[in-house]
Amino acid sequence: MTSASHSQPDTLGSVGELAALSRIIPLLPESESTLLGPGDDAAVLAAPDRRVVITTDMMIHGPDFRTAWSTMHDLGFKAAATNLSDVAAMGARPTALVVALAAPAETAVADLEQFAVGMRDACEALAPGCGVIGGDLSVSSALTIAVTAFGDLDDREPVTRSGARPGDVIAVSGPLGLAAEGLGLLFERGVDATGAPDADAAARLRAEHPVPLAAQLTPHPPIADGVAAALGGASAMLDLSDGLALDARRLARASGVSLDLSSEQVREVALAHGLDPAAPMAIALTGGEDHSLLATFPPDVAPPLDALPGGFRVIGRVVESDRHGPAVLVDGRPFDERGGWDPFAEWSGQAG
Amino acid sequence: MTSASHSQPDTLGSVGELAALSRIIPLLPESESTLLGPGDDAAVLAAPDRRVVITTDMMIHGPDFRTAWSTMHDLGFKAAATNLSDVAAMGARPTALVVALAAPAETAVADLEQFAVGMRDACEALAPGCGVIGGDLSVSSALTIAVTAFGDLDDREPVTRSGARPGDVIAVSGPLGLAAEGLGLLFERGVDATGAPDADAAARLRAEHPVPLAAQLTPHPPIADGVAAALGGASAMLDLSDGLALDARRLARASGVSLDLSSEQVREVALAHGLDPAAPMAIALTGGEDHSLLATFPPDVAPPLDALPGGFRVIGRVVESDRHGPAVLVDGRPFDERGGWDPFAEWSGQAG
Repeated sequence: MTSASHSQPDTLGSVGELAALSRIIPLLPESESTLLGPGDDAAVLAAPDRRVVITTDMMIHGPDFRTAWSTMHDLGFKAAATNLSDVAAMGARPTALVVALAAPAETAVADLEQFAVGMRDACEALAPGCGVIGGDLSVSSALTIAVTAFGDLDDREPVTRSGARPGDVIAVSGPLGLAAEGLGLLFERGVDATGAPDADAAARLRAEHPVPLAAQLTPHPPIADGVAAALGGASAMLDLSDGLALDARRLARASGVSLDLSSEQVREVALAHGLDPAAPMAIALTGGEDHSLLATFPPDVAPPLDALPGGFRVIGRVVESDRHGPAVLVDGRPFDERGGWDPFAEWSGQAG
Repeated sequence: MTSASHSQPDTLGSVGELAALSRIIPLLPESESTLLGPGDDAAVLAAPDRRVVITTDMMIHGPDFRTAWSTMHDLGFKAAATNLSDVAAMGARPTALVVALAAPAETAVADLEQFAVGMRDACEALAPGCGVIGGDLSVSSALTIAVTAFGDLDDREPVTRSGARPGDVIAVSGPLGLAAEGLGLLFERGVDATGAPDADAAARLRAEHPVPLAAQLTPHPPIADGVAAALGGASAMLDLSDGLALDARRLARASGVSLDLSSEQVREVALAHGLDPAAPMAIALTGGEDHSLLATFPPDVAPPLDALPGGFRVIGRVVESDRHGPAVLVDGRPFDERGGWDPFAEWSGQAG
């Protein structure tokens, strides 16, 4: 141990918000669309399309993450990734983010720096050219992250939830149920003997199950596939944040159609992205936080189906709603994610 | 008492975030620049200028407000007003806001509705046509408000902090020290016998001292004067959030000049906006949260000085920096807001 390890680390409370900001800002990714960056009353972002896609989301310690499971780097990465995904789901190209961070006074400045690096790594990995154009740093008893993300439509129309039509194919890009598998592992085995979230147990889990843990803690949504889907003629699209079945119902209702998913195709996609074959397969329909993109494509736009853009894979077909109105079907039967029939009940991972 | 008064009010925790949102969203002000509003993964905002002015700010229970002093309507009003002011300070026309609100589970839905009405009242009063284009609602132990605001430049250049030149006049639109007078009254007399913030005491104060209390709790920044200043040829501008002296120093440093303020003109502006003549007049230089606009105007643009745009009034002159670098002077003498010389020490409110 060196003597330095005995000195008190700088904290947000000990150095103050302005000094902490001066250390964080240089680590944040720069946006290629920045016309005027941090330092004035407001930033100026280029919006060549004359329209700006805007989404905002708040992550809060407790409901949204555990600090024993997520590092500050993870949180920066996830906060950027999930907001970028909402921009991508409109068929837009992410251009910039603003971030307001409120942290306890005892938070180490080094941890705030790691948060910034996490945002930078997410932008570099998922949306090159996108960066942070502004922000705010405050002290709060509850670690709170509010990100607002921006995108440009490059003269295309936004891809909303309401454009799906009977006959369209349903396709997904990204994992299904994988983030929920990761969260399930953390709740089951990322805890100490008293059941409290435990950093050492979580570190062991990351080594043993890197794929589902990464899907939960540092998701890599297929951001570029948002623009690819728009260019490929997608009729509707959304980001899967609350589970395939629930989000598919939202798309169905917005479009006034029903979505008939194929359990076999859903299973194939889920397994191809690393879902444990031994896991209850219904998690592919109900598990949240995958931030995969669900899109529909008119059949005349995208045949052959193996030529769908980017990582999209067919998982079903849009059909007319029956007299009960817009619904999600699996293999032609109404599916309610809140319980009841399990289309995977008779499927055994061990058997195949 | 009616029987209804015995029933439990709906809370964020009891009805859930989606149900609460469905009651709040209809109360929020609509933006005339909305191309696609709430309900999809992201909103779409018109940006006719091809550039968007963006600012973000977080308000947190404790450091930024007391719930015994501020109603939820006040907080919605102030969150909108302070962010609109940062847009105005760039010379931009505010077009839209997004708001992320995190509140304790026991928060009454009726209070969340009042927050929305407060935002609506602020937009209607301060920036007609501006409204809320998206948001997020979460549960948190700490009431937290994150607002991001947007503006359009209407083909003008942004008015930054760095354009002030020697010879420019310095002008301010809005009060000086008034919000700090209000906060001082609250800390002194808005408390119970133990010194804790007290709602009844605050209500009495509001009746006795409506002007400074409103300046602190529901500020009305001169939003339209941001565009007026830009059209009037302002060379630099910023929003006064941390006090005239400190913010003037920021403008001085960004511009590489010194700002020489006139104590007499500062006092005149402060008194004209309602600052108590008996208050320590230094508060006009050091008091924060006024959200007035400080701007500089080239002398060839804006003579006669009584023809400055909107509510701007001259309070000084931009001068060359001396060998000590950019500074704030009062009556030609260096001023340090952290203490020392008080230019108002010999002035008596009772005497004049």
